[in-house]
Parts: sequence; C-alpha cells; structure tokens
Amino acid sequence: MPKHETRLRVRYAETDQMGVVYHANYLVWMEIGRVEYVRSCGFNYKDLETLEGILLSVVDVQCRYLYPARYDEEVVVRTEMVRSNPRMVEFGYEIRHAEPDRLLASGSTRHIWLNRNMRPSRLPEKYHDFLLRA
Amino acid sequence: MPKHETRLRVRYAETDQMGVVYHANYLVWMEIGRVEYVRSCGFNYKDLETLEGILLSVVDVQCRYLYPARYDEEVVVRTEMVRSNPRMVEFGYEIRHAEPDRLLASGSTRHIWLNRNMRPSRLPEKYHDFLLRA
Amino acid sequence: MPKHETRLRVRYAETDQMGVVYHANYLVWMEIGRVEYVRSCGFNYKDLETLEGILLSVVDVQCRYLYPARYDEEVVVRTEMVRSNPRMVEFGYEIRHAEPDRLLASGSTRHIWLNRNMRPSRLPEKYHDFLLRA
Amino acid sequence: MPKHETRLRVRYAETDQMGVVYHANYLVWMEIGRVEYVRSCGFNYKDLETLEGILLSVVDVQCRYLYPARYDEEVVVRTEMVRSNPRMVEFGYEIRHAEPDRLLASGSTRHIWLNRNMRPSRLPEKYHDFLLRA
Repeated sequence: MPKHETRLRVRYAETDQMGVVYHANYLVWMEIGRVEYVRSCGFNYKDLETLEGILLSVVDVQCRYLYPARYDEEVVVRTEMVRSNPRMVEFGYEIRHAEPDRLLASGSTRHIWLNRNMRPSRLPEKYHDFLLRA
Repeated sequence: MPKHETRLRVRYAETDQMGVVYHANYLVWMEIGRVEYVRSCGFNYKDLETLEGILLSVVDVQCRYLYPARYDEEVVVRTEMVRSNPRMVEFGYEIRHAEPDRLLASGSTRHIWLNRNMRPSRLPEKYHDFLLRA
Repeated sequence: MPKHETRLRVRYAETDQMGVVYHANYLVWMEIGRVEYVRSCGFNYKDLETLEGILLSVVDVQCRYLYPARYDEEVVVRTEMVRSNPRMVEFGYEIRHAEPDRLLASGSTRHIWLNRNMRPSRLPEKYHDFLLRA
Repeated sequence: MPKHETRLRVRYAETDQMGVVYHANYLVWMEIGRVEYVRSCGFNYKDLETLEGILLSVVDVQCRYLYPARYDEEVVVRTEMVRSNPRMVEFGYEIRHAEPDRLLASGSTRHIWLNRNMRPSRLPEKYHDFLLRA
C-alpha cells in the first residue's frame, strides 16, 4: 500500500496566541490522515466501529515539530501503515506545507483493536487483505 | 437556588492567534458551569447519564462577548437555572474576570432531556426536588 | 451576494461521549463558513489581519440545534452576509447534512472590526465593494 | 526540583464517541502541568512571553496511553523537568487517575526557547536559578 495523502486547510480555531497551530492539533490531523488512509483501502473506519464493534485505540503517539503551520495554509498529511497484525496497527505520518512543499512535522501512532467493552480484540479476518501490511 | 460560581484558569490551548480566548471555548466553560451547578445541587450529571440513561442535550446557545479573556487569567463562571420543567432546562451564565471583577461575556443555553436512543425524555421524578426550579 | 456553501467531514475529535458532535464545534464550522464566504468574494480574511491589521472580532453568537451531526458525515455550511457596514458584519448560517439533505442547525454571528490594539475600527474602503452588503 | 502535581477534572468537551478522553487532550493537560510547574518555581510562564518576549516552543512530544480517562474524573498531572539548559527544556509527565491512584498515561515534551521572531533564543540569565536543572 503506497502512502496516502489528504489535504486540509488550517482553521482559525487551531491557532494559539503564538500565532501558529497549537501543537496538539497535529494529532487531530494524524487521525484525519489514518481515517482517509483506511477509506482509500476501500471501506470506512466508521463501519468498523458501528458494524463490527471494534475500535482503533491509540496506545502511543510521537510527533516531532520542525516548522510551524499557520492559519489558512494548506497542509498535506501523508500517511502510511508502517506495521500491522490482527491485534495492532502502526501508522507513520508526514505533515507538509502544500506550496511550497516543506516538511512541517513527522510522527507516528500505534494502536490496538478494542471491542465494545474496551478489551483487546482482533481485526476480523475479512479485513485482513485490506488492512494487514504484507 | 442561588447562582453557582466555579473558577477556571485560561489554558494556552484555548487562545487563538488574536491573542485572546477563541470564542467557541466560552461554550465549553458554560458546560463546566452547569455541571458544577448540578453538582452543587447534590448529585452528578455523570450519574444521570450512566445510571438513569438520560442526557442533557443542547438545543439552543446564545453568547454575547464584551471583553476578551486572555491566557492564564482566572475566570469565574456564574451559572443559574433560569427555567426548568421535566422536559427542558434553561441556564443563564455570566463569565467574569476574577480580579479585578469584570463581566467578559454573558449567555444562555437551553436543553432537553434525551434517553439513550436520543429521543425526548423526562427527568425522573426523584430529581425534581433538586433540579426543578420553583 | 448569494449564499456560499462549503463542505467538511466530521472529525472524530469533534464528537463527544454522547456519540454526536460536541455543540461548541458548530461555532468552529461557522467560522470556516465565513472565511470561505470571504474567499469567494475574491480575497483572504488572512490578508485583512496581516496586511491591513484589522481583525473580525465576534461579539455575538447564536445557534439552534435541530439534529445531531455524527462522525464521518459530510456537512454543508451555508453562509450568507445578513447585514454589514464599515464597522460591523452579521452572518447567518445553515449547517446541513449533505446526503440526504437535512438541516442540522442554524445560527448567526455578529462581528465588529478591531485594529491591532483591539480597538473598534473600520473596514478599509477598498474592501467595501466586496464586503458591504447593498 | 521535586515533581509538581496539578489536578483537573475531565470536561465533557474532552471526551469522544469512544466514551473516553480524546487522546490529543493529554497534550493539553501536559501543557497545564508544565505551566503550573513553572508557577511553582516562583513566576509565570505568561510573563516570559509578555515581558521577556520569549516563547517555549514544542519540538517533540511523546505519549503512551495505558488506561483511558473518563468524563468527570479527577486527574493528576505530575510534571518534572528532566533536562534543561539555556536553549532547551525537557519535561516528563505522569497522568494519573486521582482516586484510586492509577497511572493513565506517561509522556514527555521537548522545547526550545524562541524570540518574538520565532528564532531560537536563550532563557535570560535571571531565570537560570529557577528553571535550569542542576
């Protein structure tokens, strides 16, 4: 599976008084990146929650900030699945300024699948072809 | 029931690049105000959700902004129940700078009770003494 | 100036434990609506801040909630300028579910122009043709 | 300098539809932790920004999530300064459920000092005694 790109525009609400994007919002952008990554694999993360009753819970986050993103800029979130098995998934991200192209931040998130009772679970087999990385 | 006051300190995350608190965050502060109002009546809003299966859903919000709140300032949220019956509740709020005392914003929220299926519901009778305004 | 429409997809971060979008986020969507409205008039709100040193400060917000928006749904923000003069602007909004089309919420915001010292100011004349409603 | 503890109560706005706190909000709590840490050293981070014109910019964040925090729970943020020199600071955090005591998450943030032009800068010498770790 190649890297997947999704674009977004920085919201006023995402800035802070430093005049740049508040750092916690990059984690929200990573979430958008992985949801769109899953969508590009042919199905919705939402269906996993509502139809299959499994949740993708974040167990680890890391982000390195190189240049600040600013209000109204167009930002590209480049997402790839780094590792996966039926119990866990790891995504890597690059957050880039669209034009001119420039790396703003890079990060990763690690997840486990949980069932509705918030207990560790497994990704159902029918999704393995789509979501398990060779 | 007299007005209830709760205090909070402005978070960096709540500011925007204008150098003041982003306006949508006042709604979050109102929510803190009404939760603490309910707590001051002798029980938890959380229990209403988990034990009684009823939710207090917002149907209307209004806020007027007079002076901006700034990072690290202490803010007082003064909450009162303006109207209530078993089907709806209306709260009024004043958001004030703590010292010197100054009105920053005033607003109101109107709510209906919903059950777990998101259908209009009624506040159980045992709470009427606490939460229904004479 | 006709109504302007902009689309967005509900983020996971925008939901709360009620399983629907947290009500304060509708104000963020209104902000996106008016920024895109201004862009459709031929210039950037960002430039007003950085080049002209004037800010569009919110003085009043009102929102009525009819149906909840949910995670991953596509939402349309329909924005129109209701009133304006060189000192103030008022916007009206409809927030609709994209498909099937359904009104989720309606609201309005009133703004005044401030200069960099957060004092009331006037919209520079060269923008009047674009941003003042006949 | 010993560890510093600050308490907060989980806001409804901080939950997501999983029924627990949205993971990005732990970064906001870490920010509260380090601001209160600085305050416990005898001065305000706010003054550093407004009087000295220096900003504490985040360059790296890491967080590991063990147990979810839930609405209305009291949470303790335990903050310590792990490393520091006139150009950078590193904080470590434990985010704990208050009662019963339980570790919910642990993390760290690394920061550099920036001047008003967003260029790397140095912490003024008069603060070294307070903010530089032996």
